Amino acid sequence: MTAPRGSLILVPNTLDFGIAADAPDVRDVLPASVIRTAARLTHWVAENAKTTRAFLKRVDAVVPLAQPLQTLHIVELPRAQKGARGVPATDLTALLAPALQGVDVGLISEAGLPAVADPGAALVQAAHTIGIPVIALPGPSSLLLALAASGLNGQSFAFVGYLPVDAAERAARIRELEALSRRANQTQLMIETPYRNEALLGALLAHLQAATRLSVSCGLTMPSGFTRTDSAQGWKARPTALPADVPAVFALLAG
Amino acid sequence: MTAPRGSLILVPNTLDFGIAADAPDVRDVLPASVIRTAARLTHWVAENAKTTRAFLKRVDAVVPLAQPLQTLHIVELPRAQKGARGVPATDLTALLAPALQGVDVGLISEAGLPAVADPGAALVQAAHTIGIPVIALPGPSSLLLALAASGLNGQSFAFVGYLPVDAAERAARIRELEALSRRANQTQLMIETPYRNEALLGALLAHLQAATRLSVSCGLTMPSGFTRTDSAQGWKARPTALPADVPAVFALLAG
Repeated sequence: MTAPRGSLILVPNTLDFGIAADAPDVRDVLPASVIRTAARLTHWVAENAKTTRAFLKRVDAVVPLAQPLQTLHIVELPRAQKGARGVPATDLTALLAPALQGVDVGLISEAGLPAVADPGAALVQAAHTIGIPVIALPGPSSLLLALAASGLNGQSFAFVGYLPVDAAERAARIRELEALSRRANQTQLMIETPYRNEALLGALLAHLQAATRLSVSCGLTMPSGFTRTDSAQGWKARPTALPADVPAVFALLAG
Repeated sequence: MTAPRGSLILVPNTLDFGIAADAPDVRDVLPASVIRTAARLTHWVAENAKTTRAFLKRVDAVVPLAQPLQTLHIVELPRAQKGARGVPATDLTALLAPALQGVDVGLISEAGLPAVADPGAALVQAAHTIGIPVIALPGPSSLLLALAASGLNGQSFAFVGYLPVDAAERAARIRELEALSRRANQTQLMIETPYRNEALLGALLAHLQAATRLSVSCGLTMPSGFTRTDSAQGWKARPTALPADVPAVFALLAG
């Protein structure tokens, strides 16, 4: 007889990184079931242990944790090497050992849905490989909120991650994404490290054609959050300064 | 002096279409702020008026509606013609008239986030064009939950909508998506009308290469929901029957 297995539960985090001055109440961005589940889990794999503890403190204020924060098992996910297709699944099965013994394991990211735009997918793949059920709990995704708020094509879209930092490579990539967007009528979504928000906006406006629509969403789910969608021409004529300390999502659709 | 403007508020719906026998409590899939906002809005633009009323009945059971359901203004969004790039924004500005007079307007889909994988984006674009603020409230997206639960690449992915129904065209499209996935290491997500779930699965298994990973998510956020990820070869060796009455999300990543 095999023991009943635990699940790998993908627990969404808030989008405010726990540090924004205007961070909302967790109940206003996460469903009640997510908060209850987060409060009962004793074993976690986290993108970042420190931000996970900060999140669990906010949870504890709403639903008391099943055991004290200091006694929870929180293991950080190994970082995949840049450009690699994820760490080998064999390295990750050890993190799933509690699930093989019947204990649910939570996977949590610094913000939003785990395993989307972060290195968590390799752990999820390992769970599928060894037959551990995977349950994704509903929560906010900055990418999809930005897409919805953009008014750009939501019936065909792609998320392409970060653009190259090198100016010439970035310019080439912007033109490539614009051509791809035109060919497939496909919205192209990208993100940037907050302190480079303005630099990415500048590069997009320098290289996109005048009629291409560009949408920028900053600080979604926060009172200060906003989405602006305009043509590249319109952005140049009426600039909007972007914050350097809040993550932004950029989306473009060739006109 | 211009009057203060209302906003276009994108209100997420549950993922259960209000009909599933095991549909969860709305509080377990939507944040409290979404339920409060839905209860106070008096003007709606909806993908489907009937399912919107069903949703608002569930909201009313948790937070009483600001005015009786029968007296709410619910207008259906005109359907975009298939293949068209959305209806002209000028046709839609009339739906935003309340916002010009200071009244918030809600946009809601049959399931999940509005303006993603549905015809709502044209209304959002119209709002941007006439200067009405757009606010996307956090909620579940079946596409992103399926992606997170798949374990496939969440750092580069595309949603391509529906595949062609014609068998030869569909086979060609599957091979095209697999080639695209391999070239860009990009997960390709697609959806299908529930009664064609099995047909799409069969077509994918007939045309994908043995090592390509295929993930299918059905009924996410419901107790009966599941995600299975395996190689095309593994799916063929150990088939899983898909329900014909529950929406599924399919995702592939070339091996």
